[in-house]
Amino acid sequence: MSLLTVGSVAFDAIETPFGKTDKIIGGAGTYISISSSFFVKPVRVVAVVGDDFPQEYIKTLQDQGVDTEGLQIKEGEKTFFWAGKYHNDMNSRDTLVTELNVLEHFDPIVPESYQGTEYVMLGNLSPQVQSTVIERLKDRPKLVVMDTMNFWMDIAMEDLKKTISMVDVLSVNDEEARQLSGEYSLKKAAKKIMAMGPKYLIIKKGEHGALLFHEDQIFSAPALPLEEVFDPTGAGDTFAGGFIGYLAKTDDISFENMKKAVIYGSAMASFCVEKFGTERLLEITEKDLEARVQEFHKLTSFDMTF
Amino acid sequence: MSLLTVGSVAFDAIETPFGKTDKIIGGAGTYISISSSFFVKPVRVVAVVGDDFPQEYIKTLQDQGVDTEGLQIKEGEKTFFWAGKYHNDMNSRDTLVTELNVLEHFDPIVPESYQGTEYVMLGNLSPQVQSTVIERLKDRPKLVVMDTMNFWMDIAMEDLKKTISMVDVLSVNDEEARQLSGEYSLKKAAKKIMAMGPKYLIIKKGEHGALLFHEDQIFSAPALPLEEVFDPTGAGDTFAGGFIGYLAKTDDISFENMKKAVIYGSAMASFCVEKFGTERLLEITEKDLEARVQEFHKLTSFDMTF
Repeated sequence: MSLLTVGSVAFDAIETPFGKTDKIIGGAGTYISISSSFFVKPVRVVAVVGDDFPQEYIKTLQDQGVDTEGLQIKEGEKTFFWAGKYHNDMNSRDTLVTELNVLEHFDPIVPESYQGTEYVMLGNLSPQVQSTVIERLKDRPKLVVMDTMNFWMDIAMEDLKKTISMVDVLSVNDEEARQLSGEYSLKKAAKKIMAMGPKYLIIKKGEHGALLFHEDQIFSAPALPLEEVFDPTGAGDTFAGGFIGYLAKTDDISFENMKKAVIYGSAMASFCVEKFGTERLLEITEKDLEARVQEFHKLTSFDMTF
Repeated sequence: MSLLTVGSVAFDAIETPFGKTDKIIGGAGTYISISSSFFVKPVRVVAVVGDDFPQEYIKTLQDQGVDTEGLQIKEGEKTFFWAGKYHNDMNSRDTLVTELNVLEHFDPIVPESYQGTEYVMLGNLSPQVQSTVIERLKDRPKLVVMDTMNFWMDIAMEDLKKTISMVDVLSVNDEEARQLSGEYSLKKAAKKIMAMGPKYLIIKKGEHGALLFHEDQIFSAPALPLEEVFDPTGAGDTFAGGFIGYLAKTDDISFENMKKAVIYGSAMASFCVEKFGTERLLEITEKDLEARVQEFHKLTSFDMTF
């Protein structure tokens, strides 16, 4: 099935206890499209970069099967740039630089060839941009999944709630779910958030896995205990890409299949953190992925005959 | 199979956002023995109280099937007392009062009738008391499980390591595993801790579930997402009681069966937090427990046919 992803395509500069990078390719749109390209090709992307964005990075995306017709290149402008430094525990980080650049006035143009897309992943961006993309799709997609973050809750809660009301699946982390709902209990938070519109809610818990909610059903996906997290950048976006990619590939949006999509997303994310940036994602094979999914299954399965 | 638990039998005074209690029955030994009594009876207990400890509380234990021959009653002395107040998030608490009283010079006497016990659960106590109990058992039990906490790492690390080297299964929380091993990654921490002696390690993660480690195998147990945590006191001890109780009942210490024991422990703990103190544990039936275990299974199971 056809898949469209929206999100930042950007420069990242990352520092972890293991080393640091110069400006490398990053951004939610990049991680989502690379991750989802393991499941369906082409992956359509709506994003914007400046004329400083190297052709070789665009080629990297194209080589993975990303359709870059919707990638706007703004002459005379600069690409979004983020620099961050992770603390020793890898669970917290300081943002050193955020230069919005081209993202500041991003008008998400949806190419005519993208019309009729069935699966849409709205990566973390301003909720106003996210809702514009939905509005510019003439046919309502079969499934719209949205990722967001606390930043938009702080500065644009009304816009955010409007966009949330338009989507089928919302993905946030545990602290964001609490902030959005005003409830500490994630079960209560999920009820309140689903009452805002989304029929499904994913709550990401980092090293503790993820929860998927739908009506009265809950699925708890583990995270794979890792010896070392080398660089957590992009893990959440890679998760989202694997999730929507698996759904688009199987074209089945039942709760049972969404559980599997959460596991595939988690498996993709577990690769992402093994090296800097997108490096590891560009190496893995389908066999690697299937083996990793088997590990997730082994991790939680227990015999229920008593 | 026969089961012996060691741990504090105490007074607790608890304050949560939902209310507060006077002095009620508490202590690791109490929660462990009540929880494990769902699986095997009698549960032998080695503990100490003062002469202020009400006969009705002892009867409560006996009515659950606890053999109190090993419960010493010290004339002229007072029972261990702990008072604590939980914060609004229920994940952190302030200790208001800790009166060691009879625990200060606790000499754990093992009655002759307890000799030959096959399953032993050492609840959180000074590691010196824990190792004394092991030494006073003439035959090495089939399985010794030990719980401990960061307090002993701070003040008695050498004693603690000695006791850890004598047991089969160690149970700690994630922060304690990090402190004990000096490793942030729980997978690395587990390797280091198992090198200290225990063949199995349980890492409790509160609302995020628990991990069971053995050699190169890992099992990830979820926690049940709850609408409300009424009172978390005793949840870890209740988990331990369910874990050892299930193992003693089934008399099977394979990794596969330990996974199920972790689920049973988690299910018992999920009841414990629903009311103040031991109240909920004294109400539940075998049917409640089986239904809860089914909920845990549903929470994590996904179809692996692709």
